[in-house]
Formats: sequence, C-alpha cells, structure tokens
Amino acid sequence: MDTTKKTLIVFSGDLDKAIAAFIIANGAAAMGDDVTMFFTFWGLNILRKPVAPSHKKSFLQGMFGGMMPRGSQKLGISKMNFAGMGAKMMRRVMRQQNVTSLEELIQTAKEQGIKMIACTMSMDVLGFKEDELIDGLEFAGVATYLGEADEANVNLFV
Amino acid sequence: MDTTKKTLIVFSGDLDKAIAAFIIANGAAAMGDDVTMFFTFWGLNILRKPVAPSHKKSFLQGMFGGMMPRGSQKLGISKMNFAGMGAKMMRRVMRQQNVTSLEELIQTAKEQGIKMIACTMSMDVLGFKEDELIDGLEFAGVATYLGEADEANVNLFV
Amino acid sequence: MDTTKKTLIVFSGDLDKAIAAFIIANGAAAMGDDVTMFFTFWGLNILRKPVAPSHKKSFLQGMFGGMMPRGSQKLGISKMNFAGMGAKMMRRVMRQQNVTSLEELIQTAKEQGIKMIACTMSMDVLGFKEDELIDGLEFAGVATYLGEADEANVNLFV
Repeated sequence: MDTTKKTLIVFSGDLDKAIAAFIIANGAAAMGDDVTMFFTFWGLNILRKPVAPSHKKSFLQGMFGGMMPRGSQKLGISKMNFAGMGAKMMRRVMRQQNVTSLEELIQTAKEQGIKMIACTMSMDVLGFKEDELIDGLEFAGVATYLGEADEANVNLFV
Repeated sequence: MDTTKKTLIVFSGDLDKAIAAFIIANGAAAMGDDVTMFFTFWGLNILRKPVAPSHKKSFLQGMFGGMMPRGSQKLGISKMNFAGMGAKMMRRVMRQQNVTSLEELIQTAKEQGIKMIACTMSMDVLGFKEDELIDGLEFAGVATYLGEADEANVNLFV
Repeated sequence: MDTTKKTLIVFSGDLDKAIAAFIIANGAAAMGDDVTMFFTFWGLNILRKPVAPSHKKSFLQGMFGGMMPRGSQKLGISKMNFAGMGAKMMRRVMRQQNVTSLEELIQTAKEQGIKMIACTMSMDVLGFKEDELIDGLEFAGVATYLGEADEANVNLFV
C-alpha cells in the first residue's frame, strides 16, 4: 500500500475527543501513513505541562490560563462530565477494558513520528508560551496546516 | 458521474448532529455514492435499541449505560436542550416543515445500502453488546475506518 | 501551485468555532484556493442580521428565532461562556493580540470571493427567510454541498 498522509485539526480540548483524535492518528501511523495533528484553541490544553514556567501575561490571558485545564490529566469530557466525575469514570472504565490512556496515546504518537503542531495564533490569544507546552511540538500557523492538508487524502476537524 | 465514496465518523450523540450526518449520508447515497458511517463514542447511542437484552456489565459500564440515551428517540440537542424540551421542539418543527425524522433517515440509510459500522473499541468501553444495538450494523475498529477513508474523497468527523 | 478547492460545513454557531472556520477559509483563499462554506443548523446564526425584517412564523420557529443569537456579535463560545462573559473576554484578548474579529473575517471572506451558502432546509426548520440573513449569500441544499465537496481536496465539518 502506498504511504498516504492524514491531517487532524484538534480544536476540542475534551478528553473524549482528544482520545478519538489520537486513536485515529496512531492507527493511521501504524498503517504506515504520515500524520499531522494541528492543535488549536481548546485543543492546546491537551498539550499543556501540568507545571510550567510562569510568564508575564495580560490579565485576560492569565484568567484564561488559570481557568483552563493544565494538560491531558485535567481534561473533562464533552458530555456528562459532572465537574470531572465523568472524566474519571471514563478513564477508569477504559483502564478496565485495557484501552490505552490519553497520556500513552500521546507518547505513542511521538514515538511513531506523528507531527504535532501547536497553532501559534491560538497560543498568542490564550497566552501560552512554547515552554508551557510539552516537548516535541512544532509551532506554526494556518498556512502550514493548509500546506499539509493539501498533501493529505484524509483531513478531519475534531 | 463516477461513483465515489464518502465516510462520516459519527462521534456525537446529539440529535441535531445525528440528523446532519444522516442527511449528508443519504444525500450522497442518493447521488450514487458509496457511503460508510463509523459510529463511535456517544454516536453509538443513536444506534441503541430502546429495549435491549440485559447483560452482565461492570458497575461503571452499567452507570454509563443507564445515564446515556437509549436510542435515537431519546437524544438531546447540542444547544438549548433544556432537559429534552429543545429536542422535542426541534422534532416538532421539523415535522411541521416536512423534514424527515431521524428514525426515517436511519431507515433510508439502511435501504440505500449505507454501510453503518459500530466501533468495537467504544462498545467495549461503554459496555454495549451487539444485540443492544439496532440490526443491520457491522462491527469493526479504527483500522477498518481508515481503510474506508483511504478510498473516499470526502471524509467528515461529526 | 495549482488552484484547489476547499469546503467547510459550518454546523456550529459558537464564536470560537466560527472564528476557526473563517480563519481556515480565508487562509485557503489567500493561498489561491476556491473555498465554499456551507452554513447549516446553528451555523446560520452567524449570518443573521442583528435587526431583520419581521415575518410570520410558526410559534416554534418564533421561539427558536427569539432564543438564538441574532448575528455574529451575539454568539457565545463553546466552553466557559458564562452567559456571554467568556465570549466578551475572548473578543477582547483577540483584539489585544491584533487578531482579526469575526466581523472582519466575514468581510474578508466576501472580498476574497468565498462562496457562502446558507442551507435552505435548515432555514425552513429554524424559520429564517433570506432577508433575515446578511447579504451576499447563496441559498441551496445538501446536493449542492456534495457537488462542491466532490471537487475539493479538503472538506471539513466544523
């Protein structure tokens, strides 16, 4: 089979959608495809370090940063979250069913060479600096995404 | 016109998104396209039988199963649902405008030969057995989805 | 580079998703692509005039129309909206970061010749007449969307 390319825009920062995005991405990479994930808006929260260097930010950026989840461990689910209970339940039931956790999925994505791009415009808006996000990312804007999508045969917005 | 292929990942279990997905799918099938719908996570709720055989499940799977809507008739809408009132209103206004109901859309999809695949990994997580979902489905994982998407020229994540 | 085509289904009426959709659309158009945006369901709210001619509508259409946001200025964000506070914060922080507002993005889309189609079936359901939506739109159904998508190499559902 020919190597083909896949891209995913990860706009959502919900645990369930993040898991879905990484399962698709890792599945495609395991089948030999090139995969690019472009993280934008709430999707950047998936990539936040739990503990990060502090930076001078505008008041509003500080508020957004303080209220949004700090990294993959803190994400809620898009339905029935009940202040985090739903996310805990989903993680537990996934563990019981031997489904890979989001953290392992992210690790696998890195190991498989999936290109993970953080959207620089969203980073500016939400006030995230490069060292507040996990290692191994690239930083670029929508033009880079569009260039990747032009080469791909499957492009999804999650 | 050549026959082409379309795929839709139905991740959402919201009435409005389910209707949108089936209208696109049925429209494409009516134009002669092959269509595959891949139901995952909350999207599986669209396919639940209202009354289903009972199975031994883990405590958490039982909770998820009990709290999630049992089939297309019970879905809420993604905005302004107001504990189901919004979904009722949307169904009524669609009937007034002679728009096909979700149940008819699902029936049409079957009659047009649209391939409806239930994601087996999500079924494991949420504790759904095959006989709890409506008839006429196929059961497969992400690799099958990716194979279908590779042959398609339009792939959407709903 | 060849001119290629992109389509976006704008299903969501959230400010953040609308901004993302228009940034992608305008980016592609700036790179020389043909772009079609197909607005359906809540996505139609982005296109509503703040003040529009009144029409006789069914009771339910009147309720939907009255409760949904009247145009781009009134949209909420998909997370942390807090009765509109979140949307205000997001607009302010975007202005501070010199990111184009949604209204300017819509204007740019028009100027770049992006084809903006309002879904006529959704308009019937929600009770919107053509003169309640902003100028410069086309009006069509899912078959038109599918025809456009068949010619495109990137198709997203937002």
